[in-house]
Amino acid sequence: MRKNYLMTPGPTPLPPQVTEAMSRPIIHHRTPQFQTILKEAGEGLKYVFQTKNDVFILASSGTGAMEAAVVNLLSAGDVAITVEGGKFGERWTEICKSYGIIPEVINVEWGKAVEPAEIAGRLKANPKIKAVFTTQCETSTGVTNDIRAIGQVVKDTGAVLVVDAISSLGAIDLKSDDWDVDVVVSGSQKGLMLPPGLGLVSVSAKAFNMANDSKCPKYYFDLKKAKKALEKTDTPFTPAISLVIALNESLRMMKTDGLENVFSRHRKMAEAARAAVKALGLTLFAPSAGSDVVTAVNVPAGIDGEKLVKTMRDTYGITMAGGQAELKGKVFRIAHMGFIEEFDIIAGISCLEKVLAQMGYKFNVGSGVKAAEEVFLK
Amino acid sequence: MRKNYLMTPGPTPLPPQVTEAMSRPIIHHRTPQFQTILKEAGEGLKYVFQTKNDVFILASSGTGAMEAAVVNLLSAGDVAITVEGGKFGERWTEICKSYGIIPEVINVEWGKAVEPAEIAGRLKANPKIKAVFTTQCETSTGVTNDIRAIGQVVKDTGAVLVVDAISSLGAIDLKSDDWDVDVVVSGSQKGLMLPPGLGLVSVSAKAFNMANDSKCPKYYFDLKKAKKALEKTDTPFTPAISLVIALNESLRMMKTDGLENVFSRHRKMAEAARAAVKALGLTLFAPSAGSDVVTAVNVPAGIDGEKLVKTMRDTYGITMAGGQAELKGKVFRIAHMGFIEEFDIIAGISCLEKVLAQMGYKFNVGSGVKAAEEVFLK
Repeated sequence: MRKNYLMTPGPTPLPPQVTEAMSRPIIHHRTPQFQTILKEAGEGLKYVFQTKNDVFILASSGTGAMEAAVVNLLSAGDVAITVEGGKFGERWTEICKSYGIIPEVINVEWGKAVEPAEIAGRLKANPKIKAVFTTQCETSTGVTNDIRAIGQVVKDTGAVLVVDAISSLGAIDLKSDDWDVDVVVSGSQKGLMLPPGLGLVSVSAKAFNMANDSKCPKYYFDLKKAKKALEKTDTPFTPAISLVIALNESLRMMKTDGLENVFSRHRKMAEAARAAVKALGLTLFAPSAGSDVVTAVNVPAGIDGEKLVKTMRDTYGITMAGGQAELKGKVFRIAHMGFIEEFDIIAGISCLEKVLAQMGYKFNVGSGVKAAEEVFLK
Repeated sequence: MRKNYLMTPGPTPLPPQVTEAMSRPIIHHRTPQFQTILKEAGEGLKYVFQTKNDVFILASSGTGAMEAAVVNLLSAGDVAITVEGGKFGERWTEICKSYGIIPEVINVEWGKAVEPAEIAGRLKANPKIKAVFTTQCETSTGVTNDIRAIGQVVKDTGAVLVVDAISSLGAIDLKSDDWDVDVVVSGSQKGLMLPPGLGLVSVSAKAFNMANDSKCPKYYFDLKKAKKALEKTDTPFTPAISLVIALNESLRMMKTDGLENVFSRHRKMAEAARAAVKALGLTLFAPSAGSDVVTAVNVPAGIDGEKLVKTMRDTYGITMAGGQAELKGKVFRIAHMGFIEEFDIIAGISCLEKVLAQMGYKFNVGSGVKAAEEVFLK
């Protein structure tokens, strides 16, 4: 007998309502029955994306939705800014290069947020730049970029602003329309509390205008096809039916709670996680720009970071994430997103204390949990 | 209270084992726990695909897997045969055109199978043809093409044979290796008895060789990335975790039954469906090349085909498929594939009799069910 806790930055645990929805007998997608669900899910997505634009539901991971954003907006030879400050920022560059788009890379030190002024400067220096690809929460480092400020510097240029909100949507605030974000990309397995398998993309009128000139070859990810189908409450290809039905349930939950409450729950959990690790004498990887989505913590000297994560998972059933790419073994990441609440955080911190103590790290047992409790008591 | 029966050519009903697997708490995909599942699923897929080649699991619909086949093998300017004899054959042509590949279209009358000699002739006339894109079961018409014979005419040429087995895999025989099929494409929501959301592709050495020269731009569907990841029992992007776990269950079921038994169950159901509709005085749309996957039946004169399908579904809970594209309103399609067995067929035929009678069609009530029972009694 062992209980498992999933505290990774995607997938996040599934609410019972979602599990129940996926357990229903499957229905056919070209029926009025499914159309009713597709319509309600579309409205719910507009609420969570905080947009009046259409949100397209793709059967793909979040990366597929990122590719859809690139190939629908641009053509080979176009220039686009990509903001790199971690593994997922780099993905924008890789996708652009795959399609012959020339990335103007802004290199940001891992653990820091991009300076909106840097983006403004590049846009001014090169008026040919057609798009700015950025990331709201860089999951690999736990950094949040200031999308509102970036929206301000992009909105009056000819470029469109594209935001990877895969790990941040439904966890922290993203006012797509108010902040002048043209394209928001997300996935199902994070704040939306579903299994992976849905890619989501919202597209502004300015972006769709650009899509008319795009010459990137595309078929499966062609958003003009998706738009035409959506006008008839349909999808161009077979949708991931069970996930769309489950999406409808998680969107209902978020609407019932209200976005503000969803965000404040995430804020509180993040604050508690940060307070707890500091109380244990640990340091944050991104002290100045840490997100309320996931907290990256430096592995202390003398401790094997990979063993720490492995022991929590394989011996005690608590799955946190290790470091990715250049951060492998150097950080571990506590996700506080999706269907997670305060007592999950307490359990996670307690397990962290247990394994750190067993590995010989010196600290006052209980101090991490106490610090977290104090935050939740406020 | 109403019981629903799904008799459409995808999605097909879900076995309880699949539903149960999707209801388990979700796990993270970069863990030894998921790797064990991915490995077993990979072996199970090789069994069902009847191949020694790797089978890649994509988070996409079947169309995404079709696109993967095109963009990994070819480059703009290449010439490829596409066999059109229905909506899904036409999709090969559309995907090729989207990537600048020149389709040499073989037009087959809807309801007929392609002549392998026609393919042989085209290949001989133009040695530049690099690939032959065909469909095993054309779901829109219910026709099965003779893949074994097509394999014979393609194998000694420089071209690769690509088969869309989306609706046929796990329903009728497809000996990928023995029949010299280089690339087999499938999806999850048909013979594999899962919800839609997984695209599957097997790739031969000859095809991977061609992939090294391919210049089509690609990122999400890049099978070289998938191959590199699979060597480490991983996927390049977040997989559709819950569907992969469920896939493992359905593959176990198929392995337990044995492929031969799976195929003979489908054969029997198809025979019963054909016998039943003939006994009702109805005619088959594809009398000479009908598949054991789905049976397309001509709507009799004086009957509104769309209303027939709608009434069975909305009044009695039995969902069959109507006609697509040029066959809209002219045929209805009884699927006998996936998690469907003889008494589902009986129920479906009984409902068909009921609604036909209500719509004023003249026949001996019970004669369709009797004919089906006689087939199952044999």
